[in-house]
Amino acid sequence: MQIQYIFEMIGTLAFAISGALAGDERQKHDWFGITFIAFITAIGGGTLRDLFLDSYPLVWFNDMNIVYTIFCGIILSGLFYKQFNRLKTTLMLFDTLGIALFTIVGLEKAQSLGANNFISVVMGMFTAVMGGVIRDTLINKTPTIFVQEIYATACILGGVIYLVLENFGLDRNINFIISGSIIATIRIIAFKFNLSLPKFYK
Amino acid sequence: MQIQYIFEMIGTLAFAISGALAGDERQKHDWFGITFIAFITAIGGGTLRDLFLDSYPLVWFNDMNIVYTIFCGIILSGLFYKQFNRLKTTLMLFDTLGIALFTIVGLEKAQSLGANNFISVVMGMFTAVMGGVIRDTLINKTPTIFVQEIYATACILGGVIYLVLENFGLDRNINFIISGSIIATIRIIAFKFNLSLPKFYK
Amino acid sequence: MQIQYIFEMIGTLAFAISGALAGDERQKHDWFGITFIAFITAIGGGTLRDLFLDSYPLVWFNDMNIVYTIFCGIILSGLFYKQFNRLKTTLMLFDTLGIALFTIVGLEKAQSLGANNFISVVMGMFTAVMGGVIRDTLINKTPTIFVQEIYATACILGGVIYLVLENFGLDRNINFIISGSIIATIRIIAFKFNLSLPKFYK
Repeated sequence: MQIQYIFEMIGTLAFAISGALAGDERQKHDWFGITFIAFITAIGGGTLRDLFLDSYPLVWFNDMNIVYTIFCGIILSGLFYKQFNRLKTTLMLFDTLGIALFTIVGLEKAQSLGANNFISVVMGMFTAVMGGVIRDTLINKTPTIFVQEIYATACILGGVIYLVLENFGLDRNINFIISGSIIATIRIIAFKFNLSLPKFYK
Repeated sequence: MQIQYIFEMIGTLAFAISGALAGDERQKHDWFGITFIAFITAIGGGTLRDLFLDSYPLVWFNDMNIVYTIFCGIILSGLFYKQFNRLKTTLMLFDTLGIALFTIVGLEKAQSLGANNFISVVMGMFTAVMGGVIRDTLINKTPTIFVQEIYATACILGGVIYLVLENFGLDRNINFIISGSIIATIRIIAFKFNLSLPKFYK
Repeated sequence: MQIQYIFEMIGTLAFAISGALAGDERQKHDWFGITFIAFITAIGGGTLRDLFLDSYPLVWFNDMNIVYTIFCGIILSGLFYKQFNRLKTTLMLFDTLGIALFTIVGLEKAQSLGANNFISVVMGMFTAVMGGVIRDTLINKTPTIFVQEIYATACILGGVIYLVLENFGLDRNINFIISGSIIATIRIIAFKFNLSLPKFYK
């Protein structure tokens, strides 16, 4: 319980930073715009999952730590964005940390609410990627998941592996770390070597 | 009951194919992207309807046949997309079949949950068109319903006719077929003769 | 109760008009498209708030007056759009009236459903601005709140002032009028003098 909560906060912080830095590319967002985008990136996926699963109240409505964490991420981005952007891959690393943690957190929440295996994996992936999809749609960018390297597919693979290992009776915390690491590893390798899934139409 | 279920599956298949083929225009979507788009096209409208009507669990969470049907549509699109695209109107025909069936299915579901006539017609139209609207928004296209030939209006007309005929005591299955056929006929005529509603501002 | 209801209807009318006129810029929307956009602008924010707060049925599902009011706004826009557009600031004024009224209405609804102060202010702002955000996203425009003069920030400030005055025991109706007027005043001054928040990245 404690460990999961810490993971959720780290994931939230990572997504808030990745959201605040994503606005940077346009150079035109004001403080409110960046705050809005950071919030959507951090809580969009979880909110959609909770709406779909009829799970109320929404997580961030009852836990102000999430809100404080997001504000921390925004302030850190404002203070250190030059350093963050100098390392070209920083944004990607924060985002990868976020999707790895949120996939498993979302999958477990769906399971605990009685969803079947397929829906749990889909909800895990949704929790991880939909914040970014909503963000990209709002700022009129084509969502990363449609056009770039392996991304959401890594979340789906990690989710499936989590379910398989769970089925073999592996300890939950160890499973969380293994499955999350696999998601992060696949994503980083795909990013580094520019790996994509095959195109649908040849 | 049985007949409605078969209609729902045909509509789902039609929308999944229309969604998978819609990605084609860009030529850049990978397997995951196309799968995602096909799912959104097929279940987006019904999901939005269920969220609005507080109807849980969402249909596709409890009925894996919907999921299998969508995967069938994606595989069919992958195998036969050259044939599908050769006939310029195929995409339109699958889409028309989808909106005709989903309008009545959505209208009936709203009715069964106690919605009034106006809301039922709107929810029928939503079920039919919102999957496509969400899809178009995500891939940065202006949604068809804002700019092209008569489309959502056909759904609204068909929904109103369904309610009128129901009021006259017509058998439900016959009503379903008549109203759905009217939607499809209006849409096909509008497409063939390029008919649009008058512009709002002259 | 009566006063709030009248305020809600005025806000709905104002947003419906602002939505119908927003479509004008493109000159290509048909009657259905404009109707759809006017509805989304008027009820999008409230619908999102109700989904987030698990408040069912959605307001416009049970109160046909809202629907009639929106149709009135659309018809007025169709009849007088030349006059509306001649005064360059008309669209802004209708929109300002809408956000001022909806912020407080949304905040109070969130409060009455047990939300904390932070969430209530956010839900007030959401009620006010998200209809416009969804509208802009659907017609492929970058949402106003990300790039223009002080807008959502005025709603947040007004919401905070409402809570402070409420805490001091001010009569609710007077508080409603004061806080709403502050939102409208900030927005009009920001529009007139082209005031923006500082950019996040310098």
